[in-house]
Formats: sequence, C-alpha cells, structure tokens
Amino acid sequence: MIIVMNKDATEQQLDAVVRKIKEFGLDANISKGTERTVIGAIGDERKLDQELFEALPGVEQSMHIVKPYKIVAREWHKENSIIDIKGVPLGGNQIQIIAGPCSVETEQQMEEAAKFVKEANCRLMRGGAFKPRTSPYTFQGKGVEGLDLFRKAADKEGLPIVTELMDVRMLDTFLEYDVDVIQIGTRNMQNFDLLKEVGKINKPVILKRGMSATISEWLMSAEYIAAGGNHNIIFCERGIRTFETYYRNVLDVTAIPVLKKETHLPVIVDPSHAGGKAWMVASLSRAAIAAGADGLLVEMHPNPCEAWCDADQALNPGELKSLMGELKGIAEVIGRSI
Amino acid sequence: MIIVMNKDATEQQLDAVVRKIKEFGLDANISKGTERTVIGAIGDERKLDQELFEALPGVEQSMHIVKPYKIVAREWHKENSIIDIKGVPLGGNQIQIIAGPCSVETEQQMEEAAKFVKEANCRLMRGGAFKPRTSPYTFQGKGVEGLDLFRKAADKEGLPIVTELMDVRMLDTFLEYDVDVIQIGTRNMQNFDLLKEVGKINKPVILKRGMSATISEWLMSAEYIAAGGNHNIIFCERGIRTFETYYRNVLDVTAIPVLKKETHLPVIVDPSHAGGKAWMVASLSRAAIAAGADGLLVEMHPNPCEAWCDADQALNPGELKSLMGELKGIAEVIGRSI
Amino acid sequence: MIIVMNKDATEQQLDAVVRKIKEFGLDANISKGTERTVIGAIGDERKLDQELFEALPGVEQSMHIVKPYKIVAREWHKENSIIDIKGVPLGGNQIQIIAGPCSVETEQQMEEAAKFVKEANCRLMRGGAFKPRTSPYTFQGKGVEGLDLFRKAADKEGLPIVTELMDVRMLDTFLEYDVDVIQIGTRNMQNFDLLKEVGKINKPVILKRGMSATISEWLMSAEYIAAGGNHNIIFCERGIRTFETYYRNVLDVTAIPVLKKETHLPVIVDPSHAGGKAWMVASLSRAAIAAGADGLLVEMHPNPCEAWCDADQALNPGELKSLMGELKGIAEVIGRSI
Amino acid sequence: MIIVMNKDATEQQLDAVVRKIKEFGLDANISKGTERTVIGAIGDERKLDQELFEALPGVEQSMHIVKPYKIVAREWHKENSIIDIKGVPLGGNQIQIIAGPCSVETEQQMEEAAKFVKEANCRLMRGGAFKPRTSPYTFQGKGVEGLDLFRKAADKEGLPIVTELMDVRMLDTFLEYDVDVIQIGTRNMQNFDLLKEVGKINKPVILKRGMSATISEWLMSAEYIAAGGNHNIIFCERGIRTFETYYRNVLDVTAIPVLKKETHLPVIVDPSHAGGKAWMVASLSRAAIAAGADGLLVEMHPNPCEAWCDADQALNPGELKSLMGELKGIAEVIGRSI
Repeated sequence: MIIVMNKDATEQQLDAVVRKIKEFGLDANISKGTERTVIGAIGDERKLDQELFEALPGVEQSMHIVKPYKIVAREWHKENSIIDIKGVPLGGNQIQIIAGPCSVETEQQMEEAAKFVKEANCRLMRGGAFKPRTSPYTFQGKGVEGLDLFRKAADKEGLPIVTELMDVRMLDTFLEYDVDVIQIGTRNMQNFDLLKEVGKINKPVILKRGMSATISEWLMSAEYIAAGGNHNIIFCERGIRTFETYYRNVLDVTAIPVLKKETHLPVIVDPSHAGGKAWMVASLSRAAIAAGADGLLVEMHPNPCEAWCDADQALNPGELKSLMGELKGIAEVIGRSI
Repeated sequence: MIIVMNKDATEQQLDAVVRKIKEFGLDANISKGTERTVIGAIGDERKLDQELFEALPGVEQSMHIVKPYKIVAREWHKENSIIDIKGVPLGGNQIQIIAGPCSVETEQQMEEAAKFVKEANCRLMRGGAFKPRTSPYTFQGKGVEGLDLFRKAADKEGLPIVTELMDVRMLDTFLEYDVDVIQIGTRNMQNFDLLKEVGKINKPVILKRGMSATISEWLMSAEYIAAGGNHNIIFCERGIRTFETYYRNVLDVTAIPVLKKETHLPVIVDPSHAGGKAWMVASLSRAAIAAGADGLLVEMHPNPCEAWCDADQALNPGELKSLMGELKGIAEVIGRSI
Repeated sequence: MIIVMNKDATEQQLDAVVRKIKEFGLDANISKGTERTVIGAIGDERKLDQELFEALPGVEQSMHIVKPYKIVAREWHKENSIIDIKGVPLGGNQIQIIAGPCSVETEQQMEEAAKFVKEANCRLMRGGAFKPRTSPYTFQGKGVEGLDLFRKAADKEGLPIVTELMDVRMLDTFLEYDVDVIQIGTRNMQNFDLLKEVGKINKPVILKRGMSATISEWLMSAEYIAAGGNHNIIFCERGIRTFETYYRNVLDVTAIPVLKKETHLPVIVDPSHAGGKAWMVASLSRAAIAAGADGLLVEMHPNPCEAWCDADQALNPGELKSLMGELKGIAEVIGRSI
Repeated sequence: MIIVMNKDATEQQLDAVVRKIKEFGLDANISKGTERTVIGAIGDERKLDQELFEALPGVEQSMHIVKPYKIVAREWHKENSIIDIKGVPLGGNQIQIIAGPCSVETEQQMEEAAKFVKEANCRLMRGGAFKPRTSPYTFQGKGVEGLDLFRKAADKEGLPIVTELMDVRMLDTFLEYDVDVIQIGTRNMQNFDLLKEVGKINKPVILKRGMSATISEWLMSAEYIAAGGNHNIIFCERGIRTFETYYRNVLDVTAIPVLKKETHLPVIVDPSHAGGKAWMVASLSRAAIAAGADGLLVEMHPNPCEAWCDADQALNPGELKSLMGELKGIAEVIGRSI
C-alpha cells in the first residue's frame, strides 16, 4: 500500500502513519519527493484497510497496489479453468451456447423449448422458475412447480439446466432437483449471504455482473464464493447501467478481454438482457464471441409473442439456429469450436 | 398505456394490437396522426406489460402513462405519513437525526457512542452488527453479539435503535432483540425475498436506495414491502454511483423534493456513506435538510481514528454537536424543528 | 406529441392545452382514460417544444412520438449511404480500416507509419495535428506543420487522410491542405457552430460520439451538419463514460446495430480510444466488425513505446497486420469484404 | 509519480523504467515489496505522462501523486479569491444570486425581467442571446440583437450582465457590448480553443461543468484559462448526467465542498438547468447555499408559460422573491450575507 502525505504534513503525522503500519506487522519505506512524502507499506497489504490511513491527520490518500482478490486471480493460476457441467466443458476451446426461455410457463412450452435448444446444437438449457421482477404485481415465476417442469423437459433431451437462485432458503430445493448450474442474478451479485451459501456446495455457479458493479467488485464477489471452497464459478456479463435510454443496458464487451486477463475462470455473456430487444441479439452475440467470450446465455422461446415475460427479447427457434451458424464461423476465425 | 405504431404498420398489425388490449379487458382508442398511429389502452393499465406490445409486429414503442406504484404514491394519499418509532415521530414537522457508529465494536465503544448521541440531542441511534463488505477477508461485523451490545447500550440512554438486516434468516433474531427500525441496505434494495419478509411484520423499515437505482425502481421496492401489509417505510437517499471518482458517491439531493412529491412516506439522507469522508458530512447534511429531508442517518464514532471500518467517514462527538446547531438553524428557516 | 394530464386536471386546464396545440396549427385528439386524460397533437409535431406543454398547469408530462431527426434517418432513406473518399467507399459491403498514429510527430515517423498502413492493406490513414489535451501543459500537437507532414507522407503512399478539426478558424487551412475526411472529436460533438461550418462544405465528416452523448443527441448533431447541406457524415462510436474505472471508456457495441437501424449513414468504431490500452484493441476490433460496423479508426505507431502521446494504446505494425487477418475472416462470415 | 511493476517484471524492465525517469531529469526511488516493486519518481512529475510508463514492458500501472493543476489550486493560494464584477464581489462572504430569463426574447420581456431581478435584490442579471440547442430546427437565440436588448435593459437597472459565449469568433462582439461576465456552457467546457481565447482577456468567466466532466477535468479546464493569464474564473455546477431519467440532471452538491477545498476560486450553482423543473428550484437552491456555494445562477421569467425556451424551468418573479427570503435565512445560519 502507498500512502501519500499532504504537502504540509508534519514529522509527527508521518511517524503516526509508520506506527500504524508497524502495528499490523508490516514495514514502512519512506520516500521524500520534492512536493510530497510517500510511504510504502511492505508486507501483506491485504491486512490493511485503505480507510484506516485516510482517517489519519496529514494523509492525502492511500492506494492499494496489490489486487484484493486471490483465488480467482490469474496472477496465481495461469491456466484457464475449465468447468465441467455434467460432461459439458465450459472455459476451454469449445464455446457453449446456453439457450432457453426467460421463464418456465407450461409443460408444453418447456418440452418444445428443449427440443429446439437441442436441434440448434446447444448443449445446455436455461429457464427461470423464480423471477426477480421490479413490480410486486407482475408474474413472479412458477416457483418449485417450474423447477419440476424444467427438470423433466430438459432430461428428455439430455440437457443440463441453468436456473436462477434468489432466496437462500431455496438452496436445498435446488439441490433436490439437481440443478446443474445455479445462476446468481444481477441484483444479487452483492447478496453476500447468498454468495457464502453457494460457496459451500460444489455446483457450478454463474455469477452475473451487478448492473453497476465494477470489474473489481465483481471479482471480489466471486472471491466470496471461492473463499467458501467452491471454485466452479462462471462470470456472466449482462450489460451495465449508463445514461443511455435507447436500450436497456450497455453490453460491456471490454469486460471480456479484461476478465480473461484478470481471472482464470470462464466468462460468458447474456446478449438478451443486455440490449433488451430480440433484433439486437444476433449482433451482440457475434460481438461477444469475437471478443473472446467462452459462451452465451441466450433467450429463445418457441413462440416469443406469447411469452409471459420479456416477450420482446427472445429469439424464435429459427433465429437461434441461424445465429449458431454465424457464431460457428466466428469461432473458427479465432481458433475455437462451438 | 400508449402504443405507437411505426410508420409502415399495416391495418392487420393495428388490429392485432387492439385485440391484445381487449384480451386483457381494456378498451382501445385509436388516433391516426400525420406520421404515426397511436393507440391508447383505456382501463387499468397496470395489468398490461410494456414488453408484450413491443414484441408485436408493427409496434414502435409502448409507454405506461400511469405510475406503477400505488400504496406508496402521494397521488392516492395526500397527507404526509408520520412513522412512530417508540414515540419518536419521523416524517412530521420535527426532523430526526439518527447517529451512531458504522459498526458495533465493543461494549465501551457502544456505551460512549450512545452517551454522545444523547448529548447531541439526537433521538435515535444507528449501528451495524452485520456488515456488507466488498471483500470476504475484511471484518464482517460482530453479528448477534453486536446486536446484544447495541441493544443494551442504547437502552441505557433510552434510544430506539436502527440496524441493518442482510439475511432473511436473521429476521427472527432481529425481532427477538426488538430492533426498532430495520434497515435494508443499498445492495439489498432489490432483494425481493427480503422485501417480502419485512413486508409481513410491522416494524418501521428504512429502505436505502440502490447504488444505481432509479426513483421509480426505488418506489417499486417500497411497494413490495407495502403490498405485504407493512406501510412503515422510510426512504433513505445515500448517494448514487456515477463517473466521478473524487468521492465515493454523488448525493442526489434532487431525489428529496422528487420523493416528497411522489410519496407520502418520510425521506431521510445518509450523508456519511454518500461522500465517504468526514469533512464532507456537514456540508451534505445542511444541504439535505435545506432541500427538505425529514431526517439524517449520520455516522459518529467516539474516536474515529480507531474505528474498525469506514474510519475516515465518521464525525467525532464534537463535530456532531456543532452540526446539530447548524441544522437547527436551517430547520427554523424552513419552518421545521429538530 | 402526446400530452398526459394529471389526475386532478380541470376542464379549463385541458382547454388551455388544446388551445396551445391549435396556436401552432395542429389538431388535438382527446382520449379520456380511467385515471388520466391524454391529448394527442395531430400534425407536424416537430414544431412543438415538449417544455412548452410541461409548463402549463395540469400537465403531467408530454412526449414526442416522432423522432426529431429527419435527413439522417433511415425512416426516410431506406438504402445505406455510401460515402466516397477519393475513390474509397465507406458504408457499403467493403469494410474500411483507417489506421495511423495518434499524433503527427516527425517526417520520418509519418513516412514509416504511412508505409506500414499501406502494407497492412488499409486504404485510409489517420493522424492528429491538433490534439485536444486535458492539460494545457502537455503536447498540443504540431499544428499546421503537422498537417503538412501528414499530407506529404500520405500522398507518397496514395492514402487519403483523416484528421481532427477543433477550431472553426482552421477550416480554411484544412481545405487548403485538402484534408480528405474531417474528424469532429468527442468533445466537440455539440460544438454547434463547428457543426454548422462543416455542414457548409462537401468534405466527408467523421462525427465522434460525445463521451456521454445519447444516441438521439448524436443523431441530432449529425442533423446539424446535414441541415447545412453536407450529407457525407460518418458516425464513430468511441466508448462512453461510465462508472467503470478499469478502462478509460466502455465501447458501446449496442450502438452499432441501433445506428444501422436508425440511420442510413456509415458507422465506424474507434477501439483504441475506447479501451485505452493496446492489448484490448484486437478484441474490441473483432467485436465491432462482428457487430456490423462499417469500419474502424485504429491507432498504429511505428514504435509505440516512443509515441509522444497515448503511447500505451497504439498497436505496432505487426499487430495491425495480424489484426487485419482476423478481421478479414470475420467479415467473410457475415458476408462482407475488407 | 508512482510506477508499480507487475509481479513477474524483470530487472531489465525495471532498469528501463528508471532510465526513462532519468531521461526527463527526475530521480528514482526503488522500493521492493513482498509482491510488487514500486518506483517513485522524485522531482517535478508534471513533466511525466502516465501513459509513457504504462506502455513500457513490465509496468502494471503508474499514478500521479501530485495534482495536475497549479494556478487554480488552493494548495498554492490559501485565501479565497474574490472576483470583482463591476463592484459586485463574488467569492467573499456575500452570496450573489444571478437571475434572469433563459433567453432574450423582446425588449419588453427584458425590461420587465431586469426590473424584477432588481426588485428581488439580486445584483447581477443573466440572459442568453446565443443558445446551444440540441436540434438545428429550434430557436437558436436572438444573437447580436439579443445582446443589444440585454445590455440596454440591464443598464436601465444598473445590473452587470452574464451571457454565454459559444463561438470564438463572437468574442470581439462580446467585448464591444462590454459583457460583464462571459459564460462558457457545459458543452464547451473542453472546447480548448475557446478556453485559450477567454484566457487572454480580463473579463470574469463562468465555467460551467461539462455534463459528465470529473472534478479534475473541470479544474484542468479552468487551468487552461488561468494559464493564459485570466484568473477571474467562477466555477458553476449545473448537474451531471447519470442513469436517472426522472429529472434532467443530478445536481452534484458534493462538488461544492470539494471545489472549495481544491480551489480558491468562487463556486456557484445553476439549480434551474440541473433539475429542469421550476418546482425543484427552491429546494435545490437552498441545498446549494447550505452546502457552501458562493452564488446561484437562476432562471426567472416575467411570464414563464410564455417563455420561448425551457418554459418549464423558470421561476416567476414572485417565486424568486420568496426564494431570496429563504436563502437569506440560510446564509445567516452559516455566517454569510446575501
């Protein structure tokens, strides 16, 4: 950690900072510049809180120079981690497209959806049984009944399933239905109690980026899960909140190369929630794969106009199929398969 | 709801929209302009989902014209709601300053803190037993032991207590310790399961604004609580996330008059977390009260330099006292007391 | 335009709105809903100012339903516009990569740069003679001397040149040096006097998006140029400002399909300024082309470590060449050439 | 400047950084920590470009530790600067409220406006002759004729005038009409050529904050003016762009104490453009003065409903008068006059 003293800091103030550093068992390196004195704390700076020093008189600012995340950091684990999802590898050379409807509606809808997912050559299926909705007055998902419908429909086609967990009290039920990948939604990226709980099991977890979470906060949320013992974490970029109102969110493609540099864990993208309109999905999907994403989480509905929620963002089965063709081409250009 | 057809929309597409509106039991008013046809849905539009229409061919956009919140809306409840907190009124003419440390540390710290809160003429006390921390490796709060220390120290001075609930499974413990006001933190503003649970009890709830939540989303989160039956809701503006990096968050004072217009419920402000530095707190506190806030949630620590977290943002007891004097003056200018 | 009255609006207030609409020569359609009365203004609503109505008593809100831009809108001009830059087409099937250094430094640097641009099979060259710098104390560009060096170096290789105009008083000099494409930088997107002036000439203009400009404001800035008579406008997405601090800006790929839908004019992307680091450029470039961009504006320097500004974001000649190979592959997948 | 090497940096890479520092005439202090080596550059770091170092192999990041602004910094000029505007002091104990219409419309409107400004005890008048409008098709201001009307109306009441300069070519005309304070609008905060020109004259300049400008960029834009020799600079906070759509911009009150700490120059606030609605203005004005602003720039129109632009944000004369009363009270509470 670097601590910068302000121009008029006294020797006494400097001493107090050095004393504080030593209290935590670290050493101090003092460098007197022409305008400022800078103190470097030598040792494991993760023990030090930035605010502790900024509260001391004479301190202008303090800065961590070491990244606060460790288990998820590529710095300490150079090779890509490949997550095994019932035999389907995520994070390796092969790109995975996870497709399915926004929400579980009926048995027929799920069976059709599963069939179309399979036909499009996708290897994993998504679907929501518990839906985080802005309004208490709108459809909140089919709940456990939805989990059941989803599990059965996917099993018929041999597809592992991905679904969102919102309430920590439902975790046992998720394990009972043997949900293959647990999704933590954007609104729960910093629901630390939920993170701690999924950190204790060994199911793969998709951790969606908070709507306005920084890269660093996102990595720290993954570190919460990892610190509990579960290293099967998949990052999912789903668009960030900005000033732009034409589209729901701005898909942050830059996050893809940045995460691939910072972490060894897989990175996927949700092009459906990002833009919020079906007609944007193909463009955003191609961009994500071209930028280096390891997979996608795409909404497809057998009959989008009849979908119970987010009707305007789901692809129809034909669109998914044709998108898969384009993505295959792009994957090959960058030396990957799909 | 207003549905705007695009320039080249056909009669058939128009008919399909009208049919959909009627399916939901509403009527349609068609207005053909020079460049666009606009359809108005007449009836209770809260039943209609915007996305449902935007998924239909020929539709350019659809817009709600009625606000989606009802119980919390001033439109349906003209007078200010005054929340009673063990005899202390919040939301009326008298302004309430809720003060106390960021986190519960020791018995001595809490007893001193309570004494100073009382001495400064504040009527309510804050303190955190469960802390949402970005890193899994930093101090996470004293937990239940902290609740106990807090309850006892506050009781000695006769102060009702405000503390944050993060995990739905801790609600019973909060009731057991008779927490007077339950705070829902910024990261949980859209933790819908938690909102539903605090909606079932009758304790006052402080609902902090999500770091990047819109006014409308915030009101809808309050509506979740209210829909469960608990109308004792207090909004707390605590700064929003923007591009600015000099300070932690931008205190959104505009939200104060806007909320006072949109809802009958009290609105308070947390100037400590907004700016993130003790030297900004007096300025921001005065601004909040001048703008019309019903109260503040301020961090005060008996000895800020020794605080276990957020050391750089707590006022010391003398600063709190002097701030109270300024706030009293401003309150009088706008016809209120403190 | 749609005008929504508030719940308690009186008949008199309604009449005043209708009168105002008629004053501007439009007709009014009144639709009384269950909770709100909505007035539609029938006629050319571009004559009406939204604020005019929101100032009237009883009005809750007013909304334009027609887009405010016309000349640049695809609605009125279905085919793609192809801009001819000294024989190089931009906006058609062939994708154009515009490469070159951030700033003109020396004769040798520019000659080498031009040679490498040519060798990489790019058909247009970029370079800055006038640099908008945050600090008055840093290198501000070589000015007119830089223009001269650039023109000569590019002419040797037969490359049309792209360079930024900041000051309206330099326009004649730009014409004198026969600058092939005039770039309007992000900080000048709403420098309306500058837009009006480049609207009077017939040179192609690259209009960079303002750092926090909405799509609609951006289109309106282009409309300023177009309204003056110059329809040779190229949009350039260059990243937007958000809360994220890991990278300089967030490349908004969603803007690409959205602009291609809203306007018939070409859309290019600047991956170098967006991310701000050379190691991100290949990823972002591939994403941009995959999303449907018509071209790129890429920084390449013969020797990046020695560059006078933005040294950390320029590709070296080898990296540019290798990127061109990847882009060619992606272009083919989506049926385009490069 | 601090340069942090990455974990695997070699001795050679370290040497190259030290060499680069010495090339610029500074010294290097090397501090080897347990995980990272940090190099401090000792000397005038304003000569060093951050990017120069981040382009070197083995460098993880580099950070300035000294602020890049100097003339405008309070660090080098402890006392408040008081700007004299034809005898009216701005930046001292007395707060100045600058009032007037958004745009100059007619002789009668301006004469009435001036009379009401005077009657409300304001000492300075604002009004726009050149208007930056998003659309080329809306009213662009009366231009030079407007300047003339404004000058005459204000002279009758003995009020110095404040008006916006957009085009550098109009500066001579502004001097001819002896405009007392030149306003640089939000869209021109980084129009560096314009800043350089107003830096050469000795008229007071109001520098509005760019809609998404950081505090640091804003101070640097002022430094551009100051570096030219004109130190009569007044900062004007006018709201920043965020994700919130309920109001036009978010008034950033935190910027007030922050600027008062960073610079010795006066800081005023424009509550009218920030919120965009007349009903928000009183709240925001009180907040601004309570937070420590030296003045306000407020829109007042003799007859808001008839205003030619921004009709919904102007106060009427009665509202201005009543606001002045409240502000006087708040000013007294914090030991100032109005």
